[in-house]
Amino acid sequence: MPLSNEYRSIIDSAVGAISSRQFFAQYPEHPKAYGEEAPGKALEAFNALQGEKYTALAQDGAEGWIGEETSPYTGKALGITYPTFSTETLVNRANNAFKTWKNVSVDDRAEVLVASLEAIKHHFHLIAQATQHTTGQAYMMSFQASGPHSNDRALEALALGYQELTRFPGSLIWEKPMGPASVVLHKQFKPVPKGVGLVIGCSTFPVWNSVPGLYASLITGNPVIVKPHPKSVLPIAVVVAEIRKVLTAAGYDPNVVQLAVDGSSKLITKELAEHADVKVIDYTGSSSFGNYIEALPNKVVFTEKAGVNSVIIDSAHDLKPVLQNLSFAVSLYSGQMCTAPQNIFIPATGVKTAEGVVSYEEVVNAFKDAVAGLTGHPKAGPGTLGAIQSDATYNRAKNSGSLGGKVLLAGVDVANAEYPEARVYAPSIIEVDAKDASVYEKELFGPIVLIIKTRDTNQSVELAKRMAKEHGAITCAAYTTDADIAAHIFEEMESVFTPVSLNLTGNIWVNQHAAFSDFHVTGGNPAGNASFTNPEYVNKRFVWVGHRSVQ
Amino acid sequence: MPLSNEYRSIIDSAVGAISSRQFFAQYPEHPKAYGEEAPGKALEAFNALQGEKYTALAQDGAEGWIGEETSPYTGKALGITYPTFSTETLVNRANNAFKTWKNVSVDDRAEVLVASLEAIKHHFHLIAQATQHTTGQAYMMSFQASGPHSNDRALEALALGYQELTRFPGSLIWEKPMGPASVVLHKQFKPVPKGVGLVIGCSTFPVWNSVPGLYASLITGNPVIVKPHPKSVLPIAVVVAEIRKVLTAAGYDPNVVQLAVDGSSKLITKELAEHADVKVIDYTGSSSFGNYIEALPNKVVFTEKAGVNSVIIDSAHDLKPVLQNLSFAVSLYSGQMCTAPQNIFIPATGVKTAEGVVSYEEVVNAFKDAVAGLTGHPKAGPGTLGAIQSDATYNRAKNSGSLGGKVLLAGVDVANAEYPEARVYAPSIIEVDAKDASVYEKELFGPIVLIIKTRDTNQSVELAKRMAKEHGAITCAAYTTDADIAAHIFEEMESVFTPVSLNLTGNIWVNQHAAFSDFHVTGGNPAGNASFTNPEYVNKRFVWVGHRSVQ
Repeated sequence: MPLSNEYRSIIDSAVGAISSRQFFAQYPEHPKAYGEEAPGKALEAFNALQGEKYTALAQDGAEGWIGEETSPYTGKALGITYPTFSTETLVNRANNAFKTWKNVSVDDRAEVLVASLEAIKHHFHLIAQATQHTTGQAYMMSFQASGPHSNDRALEALALGYQELTRFPGSLIWEKPMGPASVVLHKQFKPVPKGVGLVIGCSTFPVWNSVPGLYASLITGNPVIVKPHPKSVLPIAVVVAEIRKVLTAAGYDPNVVQLAVDGSSKLITKELAEHADVKVIDYTGSSSFGNYIEALPNKVVFTEKAGVNSVIIDSAHDLKPVLQNLSFAVSLYSGQMCTAPQNIFIPATGVKTAEGVVSYEEVVNAFKDAVAGLTGHPKAGPGTLGAIQSDATYNRAKNSGSLGGKVLLAGVDVANAEYPEARVYAPSIIEVDAKDASVYEKELFGPIVLIIKTRDTNQSVELAKRMAKEHGAITCAAYTTDADIAAHIFEEMESVFTPVSLNLTGNIWVNQHAAFSDFHVTGGNPAGNASFTNPEYVNKRFVWVGHRSVQ
Repeated sequence: MPLSNEYRSIIDSAVGAISSRQFFAQYPEHPKAYGEEAPGKALEAFNALQGEKYTALAQDGAEGWIGEETSPYTGKALGITYPTFSTETLVNRANNAFKTWKNVSVDDRAEVLVASLEAIKHHFHLIAQATQHTTGQAYMMSFQASGPHSNDRALEALALGYQELTRFPGSLIWEKPMGPASVVLHKQFKPVPKGVGLVIGCSTFPVWNSVPGLYASLITGNPVIVKPHPKSVLPIAVVVAEIRKVLTAAGYDPNVVQLAVDGSSKLITKELAEHADVKVIDYTGSSSFGNYIEALPNKVVFTEKAGVNSVIIDSAHDLKPVLQNLSFAVSLYSGQMCTAPQNIFIPATGVKTAEGVVSYEEVVNAFKDAVAGLTGHPKAGPGTLGAIQSDATYNRAKNSGSLGGKVLLAGVDVANAEYPEARVYAPSIIEVDAKDASVYEKELFGPIVLIIKTRDTNQSVELAKRMAKEHGAITCAAYTTDADIAAHIFEEMESVFTPVSLNLTGNIWVNQHAAFSDFHVTGGNPAGNASFTNPEYVNKRFVWVGHRSVQ
């Protein structure tokens, strides 16, 4: 069947945006776009799910029920349990679904997958509740990141996959002139899927980081087992349940997508990843586990691991909007974003501005005041910071005084009026000298910001480059009014495959990557080997096979 | 600078052919297309090179001179020596060339690379002499494989690279509507090359297997070190010398491409491959070394290794043209093609034809007679067989009687009237039972053909599939008049990422893969991880990096 006009138009628009890299959003990011009653109904639905078995997945024959999610806002367990299955059951079901899914036409796959995104959008507010109360993101971020931004990233992967899968003709007559006669062959070109996919989720962005790989594998014909982080299951469970419903309604095997929930005390990730039939793995998480995943033989692997993101401050017309922008960037979701800046390189000689050189000490003080002002604000503070997802992050932040630098601003618990039990913590700011690389050369996930005092901007660039090359980086923010220095920063950072965001002020932050336009992670440095969504991200999931026949 | 109209038109035509997979050849395959006098002049040039230092590379500061090529046609050493360099010298020069080459615009790179192909075409006859007297290919195959077919494959990689590199806009203004205001960013998208490339050549197809990776790396901005097989240097040396001349004439650093010659007793391949600055490796050769190359950490690697190619004979309207076609396919260049069929699966119950079932014995006898007839023909025999490149291949063929099967046709030395000392050997045909997988589950490179007697076609398909999955396959030929069986063969073989050539008779053989249309190797089974030329083949050589600026 050809694609319906409605869904073809969605895919065409997405492909057009991907090719032009211009602004595009299929799913509006404003919560109000989804109806007045949606938030209230979602809250009811979320409350009803708590303490219950989550049955919406309709995965039959559960071998057990497990759940260990706790809200960083209330400190209470959600009490939702999910069905568990052995690795063999999961892989057998995936293999079975593969038999039919791989032969579904690209148009038919695209039709049902776009339909699933259209179904998911009606649950954005429920997914937002689930995201807030597992990741600790504030509601607005939960809504946008796990709702419209996730759907857009999924559509991006789906659309680019569609474009690549239909790039060559499915069949043709090939004729080679050979003097008076010619050789005529019928040729068929088939994009053959690699096999069972595994998507390994993380605890902070359980939907956003999982759906690109999920939809990239699905459009290319691979069934997928989604293995969420045990502390953040519900957001992606709602997504998987919707996809399964839409698949079933369209007459497909719902096991084209399965959720594989495990418990912290008995993780099944390695068992799944090492299974011979699992051919494609998408992973978001720690570098140590990511390196293990990348080293597995005979797998196609897409990783997003840890990195150390730098800020290079050289000069600015006006420092105030720069420091405001940066204070928000480091405070947003308490630095629990893979794109959050961590290391801020400032020259000891100060920063040139339109009103003269501002001394290093003045810059640092002004930045400290900006962070303290934002995070101490009764409303903006908790709304920006969200809550701390894990004990490990919270403890790391509380102990940041012992990292080895000079504490310029001590981290502090912050009150959230709406959720008195919420675990909210404002960033600490630590000053380190350029020579103390042992302090700043690792990712300090969470609300810890390091100010690194350098000799000059050249040294700042050199260190930011070294960090990206050796430890990975997803973003680099830079501030300079000098075109030559800007060009130098671009060239040096791109040589270690790190994108630069230059002179961002106002309502745009280095943390943000827009679907259809910005590549998220380049795949070229240790922060990850893959990119949302470049052509490789879809092409590596299938193999072009060309048959020839004499007719 | 934009591309010249002449060269833009060549790239546009190539991109058009790649996208449509229709017949296209920029470089005519007939030797006469290159002038009446060309063969004679080439022979003179080839004779003049023998016994001398090969200085055309103009690689300064040789640390030694080495050469060990011997003609399989005369048994004599060519006596040509090539300059040698330490790995450090080669990599330092490549790094230095990288500094400028990476910043050359895609159009400018394309211009000089197309110019190099246009320059190389004037040397096709010399390259053919060099290929014949190192690989043992007959002259016509030497000419076509190392000349026009190689240039076309190089152009294919270059053109697809050009298409991918220009796929996204280099710069744009991105505007996100945000209520009354909007966010405006200037974005730049850069395809950043990975780093120094290494192309490791083989002794049988020194040009054809090397130039796709060479041109794919060059167009994507990576400098390349070409490491040929010590026994087959001259053909690719002529190519590298021409590229260096064209680069120099255009004002570029000729060390964008270097030749790295070594000797059998002191190979430098591992030293080069393991060098930290070598980021991209293209390899053709044995599976054991290929597996080592694939396992090197932090490299992007493209391999073509060994495989076991199958023929499945189920049924045919007329057996005679089938067996004629197959006898040529197994004899061509004495089975020293990676695409040559090795295992011929024939059901014990015989083969259905329009004139009734032909018994297994009759089929085998007719095939044996067809091979003996072709290879014993005084002119067609040596012209088809060429000569045996290596001692190892010759000895394997001579000892094929001890492989474990029943010798149906013994291999035999064949006389070549033009070259009395030529090492020419006709294929031996060995019969094995389906249960004796240990005999037929490995590549027996060279003139050895196995007939495997199966229970029925289902078993033939099952075994061909297993061979491809476990040991790799580049091609599979099948003969059937039954549409259901054909569909079954397609589905089974494509599940192990092996292309099927169905019912080939007449002037088209399973060994042949046409540039711009047929993918050579799929990259999906152990025969290799890469494909000439799918999008991955170029995309993995560079990284998309997107910068953003507030203006």
